[in-house]
Amino acid sequence: MESSEEQKLQVRKLELSDKSKGFIELLQQLTVCDSVSDKDFEDRFRELNARAEDHRVLVIEEDRSGKIVATGSVFIERKFIRNCGKVGHIEDVVVDANARGMQLGKKIINALTDYAHSLGCYKVILDCNVENKAFYEKCGYKQKEIQMVKYFI
Amino acid sequence: MESSEEQKLQVRKLELSDKSKGFIELLQQLTVCDSVSDKDFEDRFRELNARAEDHRVLVIEEDRSGKIVATGSVFIERKFIRNCGKVGHIEDVVVDANARGMQLGKKIINALTDYAHSLGCYKVILDCNVENKAFYEKCGYKQKEIQMVKYFI
Repeated sequence: MESSEEQKLQVRKLELSDKSKGFIELLQQLTVCDSVSDKDFEDRFRELNARAEDHRVLVIEEDRSGKIVATGSVFIERKFIRNCGKVGHIEDVVVDANARGMQLGKKIINALTDYAHSLGCYKVILDCNVENKAFYEKCGYKQKEIQMVKYFI
Repeated sequence: MESSEEQKLQVRKLELSDKSKGFIELLQQLTVCDSVSDKDFEDRFRELNARAEDHRVLVIEEDRSGKIVATGSVFIERKFIRNCGKVGHIEDVVVDANARGMQLGKKIINALTDYAHSLGCYKVILDCNVENKAFYEKCGYKQKEIQMVKYFI
């Protein structure tokens, strides 16, 4: 039974049609995200697709409901330090409030981390609330620095 | 006198010839950065130049010595959240140990921040040691989250 359940919750790349599967509504559970027009979504989707190797958005679709229930993204930064090394930056991770407890967050983080590793990154970093520290520790991450921010709005 | 001193320490974009002006040696003051071959440097320089709008490396050259004495970079992340918003990520900021006390770090941070703002980013973020928190506060930044990291090496 577990294997058939797992099959229904595979991680895959974001597709253009995911907008109609609740992708934006899922992001709204994370932060400020007004409704996005089909055109704006398509424009951003194509911009990111043009950087396909350097920017990957992953999702989990629930077969039963046809809804996107988890997502996260990683982009690859190219540096001069570390012998012209690369670093993965994980952003915008969210699991649907109705789909918690199924390890979907861990599944997304592992897939994003593996992707960065496969591209030769020497590390992956992310910023999170103190409350989420224990979750990321379970994913193999350790606290290192602090995040500073300046808002323009 | 101050204005002539300022003229000698202008912020500008990284140029290919900066490798011979101590750019890599400056980065070595920041972290692990073995010597980089001319070819590797040029390859990475051109890769970043192909993403010119989304990735900017700034430097300050000291006219007197012809050396690069400060640097920092910012790259622009395109998101779906915040109405398909953009975020600036500042990385790899370093001021030569012999050029401290001239506000060069602040000059670099301000220029990187202004660049991200000019491209329409709704915020700029960076990760730093707790010891550098006060410096970034002077640049208008505030602590928000914590950074988690996973190393592959």
